[in-house]
Amino acid sequence: MAYFDAASSEPLHPAARSALLSALDEGWADPARQYHDGRRARLLLDAARESVAAVLGARPDEVSFTASGTQAAQLALLGALAGRRRVGAHAVVSAVEHSSVLHAAELHESRGGEVTRTAVDRGGRVDIGALAGDLRDDTAAVALQSANHEVGTLQPIAEAAELCAARGIPLVVDAAQSVGRVPVPDGWSVLAASAHKWGGPAGVGVLVVRKGTRYASPLPYDEREARRVPGFVNVPAVVAAAVALGAVATGPDDENARLSALVDKIRTRVPEIVPDTEVVGDPVARLPHLVTFSCLYVDGEALLTALDRAGFAVSSGSSCTSSTLTPSHVLEAMGVLTQGNVRVSLPRGTTEAEVDRFLAVLPDIVADLRAVTGVVPPTAPAADVPVAAGDSAATPGLVLDTLGRRCPIPIIELARHIGDVAVGAVLAVVSDDEAARLDVPAWCAMTGHEYVGERPGEKGGVAYLVRRVRQD
Amino acid sequence: MAYFDAASSEPLHPAARSALLSALDEGWADPARQYHDGRRARLLLDAARESVAAVLGARPDEVSFTASGTQAAQLALLGALAGRRRVGAHAVVSAVEHSSVLHAAELHESRGGEVTRTAVDRGGRVDIGALAGDLRDDTAAVALQSANHEVGTLQPIAEAAELCAARGIPLVVDAAQSVGRVPVPDGWSVLAASAHKWGGPAGVGVLVVRKGTRYASPLPYDEREARRVPGFVNVPAVVAAAVALGAVATGPDDENARLSALVDKIRTRVPEIVPDTEVVGDPVARLPHLVTFSCLYVDGEALLTALDRAGFAVSSGSSCTSSTLTPSHVLEAMGVLTQGNVRVSLPRGTTEAEVDRFLAVLPDIVADLRAVTGVVPPTAPAADVPVAAGDSAATPGLVLDTLGRRCPIPIIELARHIGDVAVGAVLAVVSDDEAARLDVPAWCAMTGHEYVGERPGEKGGVAYLVRRVRQD
Repeated sequence: MAYFDAASSEPLHPAARSALLSALDEGWADPARQYHDGRRARLLLDAARESVAAVLGARPDEVSFTASGTQAAQLALLGALAGRRRVGAHAVVSAVEHSSVLHAAELHESRGGEVTRTAVDRGGRVDIGALAGDLRDDTAAVALQSANHEVGTLQPIAEAAELCAARGIPLVVDAAQSVGRVPVPDGWSVLAASAHKWGGPAGVGVLVVRKGTRYASPLPYDEREARRVPGFVNVPAVVAAAVALGAVATGPDDENARLSALVDKIRTRVPEIVPDTEVVGDPVARLPHLVTFSCLYVDGEALLTALDRAGFAVSSGSSCTSSTLTPSHVLEAMGVLTQGNVRVSLPRGTTEAEVDRFLAVLPDIVADLRAVTGVVPPTAPAADVPVAAGDSAATPGLVLDTLGRRCPIPIIELARHIGDVAVGAVLAVVSDDEAARLDVPAWCAMTGHEYVGERPGEKGGVAYLVRRVRQD
Repeated sequence: MAYFDAASSEPLHPAARSALLSALDEGWADPARQYHDGRRARLLLDAARESVAAVLGARPDEVSFTASGTQAAQLALLGALAGRRRVGAHAVVSAVEHSSVLHAAELHESRGGEVTRTAVDRGGRVDIGALAGDLRDDTAAVALQSANHEVGTLQPIAEAAELCAARGIPLVVDAAQSVGRVPVPDGWSVLAASAHKWGGPAGVGVLVVRKGTRYASPLPYDEREARRVPGFVNVPAVVAAAVALGAVATGPDDENARLSALVDKIRTRVPEIVPDTEVVGDPVARLPHLVTFSCLYVDGEALLTALDRAGFAVSSGSSCTSSTLTPSHVLEAMGVLTQGNVRVSLPRGTTEAEVDRFLAVLPDIVADLRAVTGVVPPTAPAADVPVAAGDSAATPGLVLDTLGRRCPIPIIELARHIGDVAVGAVLAVVSDDEAARLDVPAWCAMTGHEYVGERPGEKGGVAYLVRRVRQD
């Protein structure tokens, strides 16, 4: 079994495992107590805090340990907003933040706050000009991830920090995906990270609040962890987290370089060996270990299941795999294909042989799934299909009713029937699947046809209009 | 070293340690993922949930795992209040709840809610009549712990549940101290517990919401854990927690009976071998493993330090040991002595020999500390000190200025000088130490003198008036 889902959870680093076992013996007591076992736990906790602070370029008293990366990210945003509530209740977040941050922003909205979601480009990178335009006098905080968790694109943290500093607005950085992989650029006010993303155990997050940043805890009072995180501190897990971070931060840089080369191999090879596939995310300014691609005409869940059977654990932001059946908000914000989406994130130690094996099995798996769904790319024009006269820009010569059919069916039907209209004519795909709104335009961009637009469907759903451009 | 602070954290149960190690290998992946490692983690999580639910008499889908007992207790109260916000914003909590619950109640107040704190008797038990009187038509929830964490007194959960049910108000029970020790009586709507109190690892709490209870999460949305707890689920720790609970719940009942007998021994022996000591909390309706006593004329912190040197890890609710220098709210609500306070809570496996050794060293430790502070109980009346004529009820014959002196100094001065006034005369202790408000009346009750009352001190602080009653 090759585990290629490090972005969900990196396997526990061997050094962290050893540290956890020791700390279960040495650091189990309450570090707030004054007796021997308590003092020993406190010493371990202090040492862990110093170690993590050093890696993050922070002071130990700026670092609080939280119960998870999600808690850290949510406290980071909500605490920064609460600390500046006198300035205003306006928050700016990138449209591609992790759902934990977006859900915190939604909670802020539900309590009367206002949130602007800053747009990203097709590579998933926040547009600094757009961000500048989103800032207001009542903006209490800006949240921008260091790197995207689904497509790996690095965000312009340094530029955003400069922009925020000029306006006196704190920048909150969810660095969950990058800590231990690439350094976080300076200039942030509040930073959040997650230990199990860097090889630490689950149950440990890190919240760093720079001195001078106004921060007001949204949680009940507790004197522990600089009054930011209520509850008994899980010292053994914190110690293990710190040891893991120390190990990956001081480890050979060429492990990340090695993984990055493997990712480049996947980025290059997948479109060559699997037709109708789009690799998404920035090819250069990216995390070293993560690559995402989408395959046309494939049910993402079926693809993940087939890869699992073939021995590969990967994940997906695709609508077809999420239990909520809504497309990935990241891919949606980028305007790229969501269909047959696969995220490969390589844990440390991944071998080239594993990647080669993945590349060896992928084409047949995709081909088999496509064969099952029966998509046959059109090979000849269907000139015998009448094209409506007059306003050919808006009147479809053929209407495909896919109401009630889920992704990837609407796109498969589109591909199967585009050849049924003449070049220059318009075909309508009527769908009530949210993914179609993203995938029809993405399909057009990938196949060289023209996306005309959408309008309400006559029997419900939405009619997506596509003009046939290519002859073949 | 004898560790007698199980109420802070019970050492990890051996079975939990083994389970944790196995689950680090088997359950580290994201249980929300569909690949092999994810499905395996999900199976472990489901099994843990079923196991914990069975012990707690709940359905598995009523159980959510949280990141700590504190988080569970705070979500329990805040979620129950939010679920009934249309009914009202009034909460009732006992005055002796754990600080995590009281701090959640304070947060509720800071957001416009109202909180009534129900009084307890001298044993620390909530008065059901007082609770009934505190309920209102706009009461959204009632919080009552199953057992007190500082003095061990069991609360009248069954009666409170009946009362709440009759009014249609949900009863929130913080069962952190009792789960795994004594069964929780039925009738609660929301229950919270903490794994490291029963021998599980830190970082795991349990939140149980009965079907039919209105609950609205106060945290950002997350589909995990029945939408009640955002963040990656710490499956290895949850598995270990469930194994520990199963082990203590199915273990021999006589372990608790054995510990209870050891506690009885401490309860009986301490007042016999250490003069001027008060054992607090209900002697019968109590946790099996916990006993608390207070020693007059002793600095609690010094006492804990001396006990630590002698090889005993105990804790204290005393003002002298808390970093905030305010007296324990539990002892304050009970109206008992806070000075020289020691909480002994026996972990499973504590031997009688350890308890005997504790009882052997305690008298000399207390005597040595008292010798250092120089308190000499008066042995003869000091008839030569003039007693002010006229209104002897309010005019002190002697004023002791202890401004700026911390507990236990004001009480030591009081004891040293009570013999300096005639029987029937009044002595004033002027103090700006919060503990004096509790400890002067408690000293009077323990020594047979009369507490007259308080009035503002002429040079600041408060003058506490004591009438000498006893001749010796």
